[in-house]
Amino acid sequence: MAAQLIDGRKIAEQIHLETKLRVEKLKIKGIVPGITFIRVGEDPASQAYVRMKGKKAAEIGIHSDTIVLSENTKQEELLALIDRLNADTNVHGILVQAPLPAHISETVVFSYVNPHKDVDGFHPINVGKLMLGENNGFRPCTPAGVHELLIRSGVPTEGAEVVVLGRGNIVGKPMTSILIQKFKNANATVTLLHSRSKNIEAHCQRADIIIAAMGFAHFVKASMVKPGATVIDVGVNRIEDKNDPRGYRLVGDVDFEAVSQVAGKITPNPGGVGPMTIALLMSNTVQAAEAWAH
Amino acid sequence: MAAQLIDGRKIAEQIHLETKLRVEKLKIKGIVPGITFIRVGEDPASQAYVRMKGKKAAEIGIHSDTIVLSENTKQEELLALIDRLNADTNVHGILVQAPLPAHISETVVFSYVNPHKDVDGFHPINVGKLMLGENNGFRPCTPAGVHELLIRSGVPTEGAEVVVLGRGNIVGKPMTSILIQKFKNANATVTLLHSRSKNIEAHCQRADIIIAAMGFAHFVKASMVKPGATVIDVGVNRIEDKNDPRGYRLVGDVDFEAVSQVAGKITPNPGGVGPMTIALLMSNTVQAAEAWAH
Repeated sequence: MAAQLIDGRKIAEQIHLETKLRVEKLKIKGIVPGITFIRVGEDPASQAYVRMKGKKAAEIGIHSDTIVLSENTKQEELLALIDRLNADTNVHGILVQAPLPAHISETVVFSYVNPHKDVDGFHPINVGKLMLGENNGFRPCTPAGVHELLIRSGVPTEGAEVVVLGRGNIVGKPMTSILIQKFKNANATVTLLHSRSKNIEAHCQRADIIIAAMGFAHFVKASMVKPGATVIDVGVNRIEDKNDPRGYRLVGDVDFEAVSQVAGKITPNPGGVGPMTIALLMSNTVQAAEAWAH
Repeated sequence: MAAQLIDGRKIAEQIHLETKLRVEKLKIKGIVPGITFIRVGEDPASQAYVRMKGKKAAEIGIHSDTIVLSENTKQEELLALIDRLNADTNVHGILVQAPLPAHISETVVFSYVNPHKDVDGFHPINVGKLMLGENNGFRPCTPAGVHELLIRSGVPTEGAEVVVLGRGNIVGKPMTSILIQKFKNANATVTLLHSRSKNIEAHCQRADIIIAAMGFAHFVKASMVKPGATVIDVGVNRIEDKNDPRGYRLVGDVDFEAVSQVAGKITPNPGGVGPMTIALLMSNTVQAAEAWAH
């Protein structure tokens, strides 16, 4: 293995330490940052995510509540709950865990959260601020986490050729919005690739940084990577595995074993982007509480 | 000249005809679409733009008012005026003509316009909706106009390699937001180039569509254009011209004379994108009135 590992767990812990210091400063002012998680239904992955987030919040001194609604909850009931939390001055952040049941519109729900409590960064007004280069909104946790990984691993983005694979609203699009800005640590030349793109291999081959977020197991092969390039694997894909008690295991969008022979820096998966998402969620929650304190 | 001209004036007139029909439908319901232009100070270009927009509005049956404030107007006074217009049910669209005097924040002002009346598409919530692929917001007029030019000239975007030159909030960024979407007439592979980009020439050379919006006179040369590519010139640059009574003339970002020998399709400038911006502004205003009627 030639590539240097980008240790997401370690970088995330560093961010948690910084966030904890910010929490302590707020507590001196009498403010305890608070986040409320809303979970609808009993999706096991959602249960696990919310549990992890709550545990981490407790570790760094953020108060969290989890409200669990039944799978059959009506959209109006969920909106009424959000109304109440929007008005609750002890709640600085509101996170509605996706996916929601099919009869509830994520678009409607995410737009209903008070933008000042939208620590997921999914409200259109925060999406817009990010694109406009205004820095008083919330950045979605996963792409903001990838951005921190690049910065803290010393991967220069200025003038770099970046290829983002996948145009989802949660990663690909906001990742592009972050890296195109006229900011220090941004200023990249970004090409956004997706299911209708041609020449994907050639685009990847010229990239200094590849960010894979399309949800396609082991899509990025060694032949697609320029020697020395940085490869960030955001993907979480289930593949069948009879040796695993669950019957499947989780793999990324990058063929790690082969690509790590070619890349200069690479994230493991798990242990790369995943921990960063939680780190940025905690940081966003404290940002919400800090804004409240002003 | 090898390239086929994309006649922006003709396509804009076609859109105006369609918009006029929509206005007539609204009038049957008793609704006269109305737009208010706010101009601050006496910038001659702004005067000319607002006059042109008002004239076109009158031609297609949209009521328009122009409010002129002095250069010394305080930001709070402008916001108070916007408050009043936000509340006025006869005003469906509000357009604050840029640029504003230096002591007034365009960010604050554009965010203050009711998003449902934001026919310029500059409010963060509309910027966000565009990026998220939600189609109930307003699209900024110039990139939406370029998009219509492509569609109505039969330039396919699906899977096309598009290079956008310039990352401004008014053209380059929203142009990218439009073309990356998973929509018919979008689905392009977009690379956004800017002042910190490297390999600009190579990126342009591989493009099926070049959209030049960086504000650099005659930047795009024939050597940068793939034979048969489509070239859209959004630029408006002043260059010194002693033979012109104004002492300058306006030129685009594209070296038209040389590039038109290589390109497959090309916009003239003037007569390309300019008329489309006004056409989309009128269409957005009617969209606002239609939403109001529902």
